[in-house]
Amino acid sequence: MATAYEQFSAHIAQVNDLLNTLNILKWDARTQMPHGGSETRGHQLATVSLIAQEMFSSEKTARLLDAAEAEVAHEPDDSYRVRAVRQTRHYYELTRRIPLDIISEKAALSPTSENVWADAKKNNDFASFAPYLEKMLDLVRRQADAIGYAEHPFDALVYEYEPSMTAARLQTLFGQLKAGLLPLLARIVDAADKPLPRDLWQTEYPLDKQKAFGLKCAQEFGYDLNRGRLDIAPHPFEVSFTRNDVRITTRYNLNYFPMAFFGTLHETGHALYEQGIDPALTRSALTTDFLGQYAVGGTSYGAHESQSRMWENQIGRSREFWDVHFAPLQASFPEQLRDADADLFFRSVNRVRPSLIRVEADEVTYNLHIMLRVEIEMELLSGTLKVSDLPEAWNAKMQTYLGVTPPDDTHGVLQDVHWSGGGFGSFPGYTVGNVMSAQFLDAAHRDLPTLAGSLSTGDYAPLLGWLTENVYRHGRAFDANELLQRSTGSMLDAAPFLHYLEAKFTDVYDLR
Amino acid sequence: MATAYEQFSAHIAQVNDLLNTLNILKWDARTQMPHGGSETRGHQLATVSLIAQEMFSSEKTARLLDAAEAEVAHEPDDSYRVRAVRQTRHYYELTRRIPLDIISEKAALSPTSENVWADAKKNNDFASFAPYLEKMLDLVRRQADAIGYAEHPFDALVYEYEPSMTAARLQTLFGQLKAGLLPLLARIVDAADKPLPRDLWQTEYPLDKQKAFGLKCAQEFGYDLNRGRLDIAPHPFEVSFTRNDVRITTRYNLNYFPMAFFGTLHETGHALYEQGIDPALTRSALTTDFLGQYAVGGTSYGAHESQSRMWENQIGRSREFWDVHFAPLQASFPEQLRDADADLFFRSVNRVRPSLIRVEADEVTYNLHIMLRVEIEMELLSGTLKVSDLPEAWNAKMQTYLGVTPPDDTHGVLQDVHWSGGGFGSFPGYTVGNVMSAQFLDAAHRDLPTLAGSLSTGDYAPLLGWLTENVYRHGRAFDANELLQRSTGSMLDAAPFLHYLEAKFTDVYDLR
Repeated sequence: MATAYEQFSAHIAQVNDLLNTLNILKWDARTQMPHGGSETRGHQLATVSLIAQEMFSSEKTARLLDAAEAEVAHEPDDSYRVRAVRQTRHYYELTRRIPLDIISEKAALSPTSENVWADAKKNNDFASFAPYLEKMLDLVRRQADAIGYAEHPFDALVYEYEPSMTAARLQTLFGQLKAGLLPLLARIVDAADKPLPRDLWQTEYPLDKQKAFGLKCAQEFGYDLNRGRLDIAPHPFEVSFTRNDVRITTRYNLNYFPMAFFGTLHETGHALYEQGIDPALTRSALTTDFLGQYAVGGTSYGAHESQSRMWENQIGRSREFWDVHFAPLQASFPEQLRDADADLFFRSVNRVRPSLIRVEADEVTYNLHIMLRVEIEMELLSGTLKVSDLPEAWNAKMQTYLGVTPPDDTHGVLQDVHWSGGGFGSFPGYTVGNVMSAQFLDAAHRDLPTLAGSLSTGDYAPLLGWLTENVYRHGRAFDANELLQRSTGSMLDAAPFLHYLEAKFTDVYDLR
Repeated sequence: MATAYEQFSAHIAQVNDLLNTLNILKWDARTQMPHGGSETRGHQLATVSLIAQEMFSSEKTARLLDAAEAEVAHEPDDSYRVRAVRQTRHYYELTRRIPLDIISEKAALSPTSENVWADAKKNNDFASFAPYLEKMLDLVRRQADAIGYAEHPFDALVYEYEPSMTAARLQTLFGQLKAGLLPLLARIVDAADKPLPRDLWQTEYPLDKQKAFGLKCAQEFGYDLNRGRLDIAPHPFEVSFTRNDVRITTRYNLNYFPMAFFGTLHETGHALYEQGIDPALTRSALTTDFLGQYAVGGTSYGAHESQSRMWENQIGRSREFWDVHFAPLQASFPEQLRDADADLFFRSVNRVRPSLIRVEADEVTYNLHIMLRVEIEMELLSGTLKVSDLPEAWNAKMQTYLGVTPPDDTHGVLQDVHWSGGGFGSFPGYTVGNVMSAQFLDAAHRDLPTLAGSLSTGDYAPLLGWLTENVYRHGRAFDANELLQRSTGSMLDAAPFLHYLEAKFTDVYDLR
């Protein structure tokens, strides 16, 4: 006879199967599906999604949950069983709190709203998008009210992406960050007139060699191809269908080698997180994001992003990495990199420039793009900013933070898809991730005195081991703050990230 | 307010979405999935399959079906609405008649039984497989009893694959076939000593060119790559996720060009059927095989196989085809085919040889392999043949029909996977398909007097148009016999197929 917890787990495992199935349908749609298949794929996604939703919010879940709660009531607070039950309870109550009409209105509005946004972006026509943004904003405000919040409607929305975060905590964090980033950026801009001796991206890098080199580095980091694969996608992503099948994608530019290469390392970071989850958590509540309807193993968008950014930037764009990897890269591209050296390459992939577009931004300016968006989201939600005043507010903040003003809305407020689909609350994850990544890396160095030596010889196993032990294996058992406290002893703190940037760009730009 | 039929259709459309989702999970598992993903993919398949089963056999289906039946009661008998309702009723009653314990016992036994079979085949050890075959046979006998039958338990089982077929009808068909095939084969064997002047498969055909040539011919036949794609699979297959996404696979041999090429044409035939279904039937009961839990558009395995065999053999292996296509093939492989000509190539891909292995058999001997299996299935089911006597019975029939005796069970009774998974009743489809293909092609020539001219110039649009109009577009609206009667005016009849073989191999082997 199965115990109450086992019956609960078996039910959640089936929900997990459906969420993973949704992920497979999406991966296929983005990487393999012939063009003609999109309409009926939409129906397949809608049906599986609806069934997963009904299955999770059913009376059966409530009954199994009650029994499992009683059974684990006296177990240790940090046991996976207690955490699985608690997390399920939490999301169960939360999803039942959101009225179905909000969900269906949002689902119905999203495709049109996204299409209108795409046209508006193409035609630099914010006015045509504004009414859809108004409607979407109304829906997410109603969603926030239904979920409930103590201080700010943003708190209710950010929960889906970053459960341990609130508007107030973010504002504190942003204050710290701006105090460090703005002066650093000013010093770099002063020094950045010095052109590099040579532009490495004027020549062609054959795609098959780009792919081979990227995949080789991903494997060096620890990406297991027996449980993964690399494909092409116009908007790269990582997706997992349990820890046993974790796939990444990238996109190639024949000249601009960094696009595919650092894209691959970025998605590899996400993939290492997913592949590193404790096998015992497979198909469990601790590898499932019920609210977002994705099977995401990591505990939050920020925690996940901390891993993609760490492996891409703190490892992949480090001087140590290129001291080891420039020679093999040069062997792959002897003509293209003739007379270049590790130092030139390192500087070439670490240029800082205030720019208009978030997805092209460097490590220093990236978080300014994010903070601008999050601050605007908060004002839109609280009603202190009107949709009609949005382009003006955007441009003003761009000038304040980055010293540039978009020439049009296409390169300004219309550049990102997120708001058109109602994704309010997702942006903070990027910056929270950057901040966390530096905290984790500092803690790893503290715990492993030989880590710097390993990294300087291209041995990534010790770092992967530390991250697996302290972060990856736990899945969603602990929230981002708990993870930080357990492994670093601190709460979220901008200082390590600011120190990291200061040190790195002092080197890149010979500041001081 | 939706009508009763619309509500019924919306429900069936969701079942269809789930069955198509299963197909996607399977396609991915066979063509893309990294090795490590297989265990959790199994869980995903089981969960989606269970939900589809529950959804179809639910009270909701019964209620919607009752109302839809009342609504279409006075519509014409051949209307798609009437057929959709009737087919659903039929499968609904049928699936509810099969006890769940039979289904779950079969599902539980299959993986082990298939593994034991694979080992037994490898080790030429029939005795180790025999007890599993006994168990499986017991289960399918219970399944047949639950479904019910008038004359022979085989009738209940063949229904899943070939709804218009029974043991008695098959025996009549087989009598006709053997009367024509056995003498023809004897004449060919007498003439077949004459070796071909040159063996074309001693040289290498680069895989990328093999693929390009196969895909070009598939497109000439009418395969729409906007709704399809070609991948590699060790056991090639076609699979569809609605008519808008119909994928094929093949496998390559560097020397033996015919393997991938005719494999591609074979799967293209299946794909043309799926792509040719009336768009109005998308996601309907008439594109869904509820019993087999696959979303199959064609009306039966035989009807489907008639199309793969027609495009592969009657078109792709015809003299007319190579009169047109040898020159472009030679242009792709100038070294390999130097000094060869269309006649040599045509003869090379049409060699007839009694052999041990079904999947390697030619057009003449193939159906003898099938009939042997079907006759043995019938005897096993009726109890006139014991499992322990199976190898002996197999070898005796091989000697009678093909004049060869397997040296061991690996090359004899253990060669096919079908029985280990309980797939009794599926073999007749191959032969029914061959027979139907000749009837359809004759009828097309009768209706289109210029068809021979079109085919001799490589214009396949008229044939595709006739097949789409008379076969493909109807999906599962008419059973195989109805399709034949509506388009050819006859019931299933072996004569056209025998005439076709007689004429073709008289040419190939200069008989007479």
